[in-house]
Amino acid sequence: MNKETGMLRSWTLSQARLVEVAAGRAPADLVIRDGQWVNVHTREVIAGIDIAVADGRVAYVGPDAGPSIGPETQVIEAEGRFMVPGLIDAHMHVESGMLTPAGFAAAVIPHGTTTIFHDPHEIANVLGLEGVRLMRDESLLQPISMFTQMPSCAPSAPGLETTGQPITEGEVAQAMGWEGIVGLGEMMNFPGVAAGDRQMLAEIAATRAAGKTVGGHYASPDLGRPFHAYVAGGAADDHETTTEAQGIARVRQGMGCMMRLGSAWYDVASQITAITEKGLDPRFFILCTDDSHSGTLVHDGHMNRVVRHAIDCGCDPLVAIQMATINAASHFGLERELGSITPGRRADVILSSDLRALPVETVIAQGRLVAEQGRLLVDCPRIDWPETARSSVCLGRVLSGKDFAARATGESRGDSAKVWVIGVVENQAPTKALTADLPIRDGVIEGRDDICHIALVERHRGTGGVVNGFVSGFGYRGRVAVASTVAHDSHHMIVVGTDRDSMAAAANHLGAIGGGVTVFRDAEELATVALPIAGLMSDLPAEEVAEAAQGIVKAMQDCGCMLNNAYMQHSLLALVVIPELRISDLGIVDVTRFELVDLLV
Amino acid sequence: MNKETGMLRSWTLSQARLVEVAAGRAPADLVIRDGQWVNVHTREVIAGIDIAVADGRVAYVGPDAGPSIGPETQVIEAEGRFMVPGLIDAHMHVESGMLTPAGFAAAVIPHGTTTIFHDPHEIANVLGLEGVRLMRDESLLQPISMFTQMPSCAPSAPGLETTGQPITEGEVAQAMGWEGIVGLGEMMNFPGVAAGDRQMLAEIAATRAAGKTVGGHYASPDLGRPFHAYVAGGAADDHETTTEAQGIARVRQGMGCMMRLGSAWYDVASQITAITEKGLDPRFFILCTDDSHSGTLVHDGHMNRVVRHAIDCGCDPLVAIQMATINAASHFGLERELGSITPGRRADVILSSDLRALPVETVIAQGRLVAEQGRLLVDCPRIDWPETARSSVCLGRVLSGKDFAARATGESRGDSAKVWVIGVVENQAPTKALTADLPIRDGVIEGRDDICHIALVERHRGTGGVVNGFVSGFGYRGRVAVASTVAHDSHHMIVVGTDRDSMAAAANHLGAIGGGVTVFRDAEELATVALPIAGLMSDLPAEEVAEAAQGIVKAMQDCGCMLNNAYMQHSLLALVVIPELRISDLGIVDVTRFELVDLLV
Repeated sequence: MNKETGMLRSWTLSQARLVEVAAGRAPADLVIRDGQWVNVHTREVIAGIDIAVADGRVAYVGPDAGPSIGPETQVIEAEGRFMVPGLIDAHMHVESGMLTPAGFAAAVIPHGTTTIFHDPHEIANVLGLEGVRLMRDESLLQPISMFTQMPSCAPSAPGLETTGQPITEGEVAQAMGWEGIVGLGEMMNFPGVAAGDRQMLAEIAATRAAGKTVGGHYASPDLGRPFHAYVAGGAADDHETTTEAQGIARVRQGMGCMMRLGSAWYDVASQITAITEKGLDPRFFILCTDDSHSGTLVHDGHMNRVVRHAIDCGCDPLVAIQMATINAASHFGLERELGSITPGRRADVILSSDLRALPVETVIAQGRLVAEQGRLLVDCPRIDWPETARSSVCLGRVLSGKDFAARATGESRGDSAKVWVIGVVENQAPTKALTADLPIRDGVIEGRDDICHIALVERHRGTGGVVNGFVSGFGYRGRVAVASTVAHDSHHMIVVGTDRDSMAAAANHLGAIGGGVTVFRDAEELATVALPIAGLMSDLPAEEVAEAAQGIVKAMQDCGCMLNNAYMQHSLLALVVIPELRISDLGIVDVTRFELVDLLV
Repeated sequence: MNKETGMLRSWTLSQARLVEVAAGRAPADLVIRDGQWVNVHTREVIAGIDIAVADGRVAYVGPDAGPSIGPETQVIEAEGRFMVPGLIDAHMHVESGMLTPAGFAAAVIPHGTTTIFHDPHEIANVLGLEGVRLMRDESLLQPISMFTQMPSCAPSAPGLETTGQPITEGEVAQAMGWEGIVGLGEMMNFPGVAAGDRQMLAEIAATRAAGKTVGGHYASPDLGRPFHAYVAGGAADDHETTTEAQGIARVRQGMGCMMRLGSAWYDVASQITAITEKGLDPRFFILCTDDSHSGTLVHDGHMNRVVRHAIDCGCDPLVAIQMATINAASHFGLERELGSITPGRRADVILSSDLRALPVETVIAQGRLVAEQGRLLVDCPRIDWPETARSSVCLGRVLSGKDFAARATGESRGDSAKVWVIGVVENQAPTKALTADLPIRDGVIEGRDDICHIALVERHRGTGGVVNGFVSGFGYRGRVAVASTVAHDSHHMIVVGTDRDSMAAAANHLGAIGGGVTVFRDAEELATVALPIAGLMSDLPAEEVAEAAQGIVKAMQDCGCMLNNAYMQHSLLALVVIPELRISDLGIVDVTRFELVDLLV
């Protein structure tokens, strides 16, 4: 660490001091004494090892660092415990925790995560490049290493939705020159890449030309020509694989296979057999979380949870640790900078007394003691989020119940109308494109039974636009409404409800507080998670966000919704890249044909 | 390949075409049909695979490349043979073969070598940065990938020798911006690095700042603090390890262990047990040759010889191939550019019918068929080597027998004098510092028995300087002389002989032909290898150079020298970094104390 700025200096500026400390001619800042060195280069454990740290980097690893201990040197006794490299999350979205980078860092440091590669795709949909820059800015302030991937696909589905700000190929090229930008975020327009879409190829090419890593996302079981064309387009990894065959196919083609265990992703067990049973070389298999909710971070852990799970799946603990350390570092071209406890690398070390259960007892990041026994010991600085980020929910007017009325038009002005209904399927991301005959009252189409209203409220430009439709599967009873400005991927506002006045009240409430998630009954607030930053993230610590989010779950249940992960289902209803039927600011979208359709069939 | 220039285009320029070919929408340049894919990412062999190539790069690897075959597509039938990635030599010196990059490439392509990382350390001692540039220029013309490492240590021993041109840290920084420069050549001033020598650290830092790889060279058995200090200095690999413990020590510390099998280096068998017996992760173990004589290239092979040897040592063939392909590519940060048969990488493929004996039947480099059944099929273009390179042997005057007289001076003007004698030890690089009482005749010290004359003739600046001394161990009989402008590391001219007139004649001959190696008897030429380029390299093909070199061996034997590798021993007598006693243009050097000493004890 640079004592003046608290920031890690580049290796070249610390080189001379590292040599002096390693030689035993100068004192270290920190010495960790007598541990078992988990060596991820050789895949060994070596007992009786000391580590000397200077300028936040490892200077010496070997027997007896005594000569490097001076009067000012901090000494931590490992007492024979394992010294494990700090864990790396190779691909994830900070916003999924409803936390800013600072809040996320604070939540995961006690779990032993010392490096994060995150793609601020969500905020990019709201604030464009400026949102990316803000996330990058706060990431660079953290006591751990947080690298930002430049989002590649905003909007996710051009022509089918409108984001706050589109990301352009010029902006991608520009961002590649920024400090802290490590590559391109998941290139999820896989049909575009395979078809040779000019903008998608240009974004990838700009990333490669900058010597950086292109994140991939090929969410299709088709391993034929479209897959091969996508690979040829230049993506370097994929985290969308869910079966052993899919994972192996990626690695054979020269990609990294990122196996994820997120709050709702369980893709490690089904793929790790490539290593545990097929005996493949594990070096290109990498662990990640992709999306972690605050509750998972607070109650279950982060990358330590993933590594433990991999071990529980039968993976050798050293291989599992490699998959969460050096494999990820190598993938991003950072093997000489971090990912192992070896000279020159950032001094990121976990002390743990068991290599299978992996209790995270002490965490050292960049040479600083940052957590002990689950307690965070350092500050995770926040940026002063600007007004543009804090006032991102712009409805343009006060909404009323009438705005949520789906009006019968033209020939359908009878007693009933046949309409499209988005059918939510429990525990599945895809929806069903259903139809239903719904009653018309006073020219307005009404829900019935489990079919209730859904509305997409434009919130980026204050157009006042509201698109109305119908959804089934939530099981709401009474006069209720649930609204959320977390509305993947364009993050307008999704309002689902049985009562138009409650819907308007919920929407207006989120407009007033700058976004979040809220549940209303009889036009009264039941529960709210305020997400004032871009309508996506909270200022509060993970514990409070997790508790508030739990309040939403309970309120939704109180309103009759017994669906598993109901809030996630809600927030994905505008995700116009996953079949079959979705809603966007432009209308009802048939995601099997990638077309807008009339509400009326 | 770019059809206009014959040169490989950057990946970004070929990306769109690769996608089209992979998709089956456009024809490939080349298709290899029905082979067994040696996959170095998963460490598997997969049968029934086709490869489609476009622009010199792999576009598609999978079943049935039929849709990518057009009327102009070249089709090679693998007929079920193994498709092995082209082999990589991770560290070597082209000059050791007495060949230029073009001659070297021509010699090794039929052996399946498609990538070379070479350190033109020898020419740098003669011509400085300009010599590096020339080697780089010719390297870039080759049909295979030849990357140049910027030499780090010329002179090897500042103050103890004078090179043609010293390499400065500014030149290192400058070269890091050049196309084709992949990093720093072996940093062999390991005492300097460990001591914090400013220039050495600056050269390493400049390389790291450019994001490139620092070659190491720690030629000491001491694994204590000097080793750790050297590692902290930033070297990324080492090829000087000769025991399992040394190799493992490097990898544990985060370096690559380059195990070499050269013409005179046999360091694989003693280290590969780290993998075959200790079961360590092999990913940071890499194979290389370091130095290959033309005879080895002609008669024994190149990297195919090393891989076969590793397999003979009990290494799994797939692991051995990884150590000569993807491990090396990853080490230099080029894993996405070459080192495996996967999309986007340079299409470097060997067809072989046996994975253990590894016969190299067909070689494809950058998508071109370059060799078949040991026969080179393409041109390896040469640069027009400039006069500075072709007139590098500048004696300043015609030498006579008197110049090779070691004169007795001062109090030693008696009948005999006690002098230092360089004692050559068979099959060892270190020499012995011997002393002997030698007769004085007419004020000149004469040799006796096996003690004969050695002279270091200054040849870079035409100073006319000749340093005289004595050497034992060659066993020359009669009036003979052997002269060589290959004289590691500063490459002046070493002349060893029993007869001063023959020594003068041999030296003048090399002066006249621009350098090389020559054997004279009775002042008449017996055999010569002409090395007109920098006094180090021939214009001729490897076969002819090997034959001429064999002529030198025979001539030395005819003159009574039965020492194994006698010529190599000769060429190392000025290597003032290896103990105990050497000769340089500045005098006799005690390499245990790194001091110049008087000839007279």
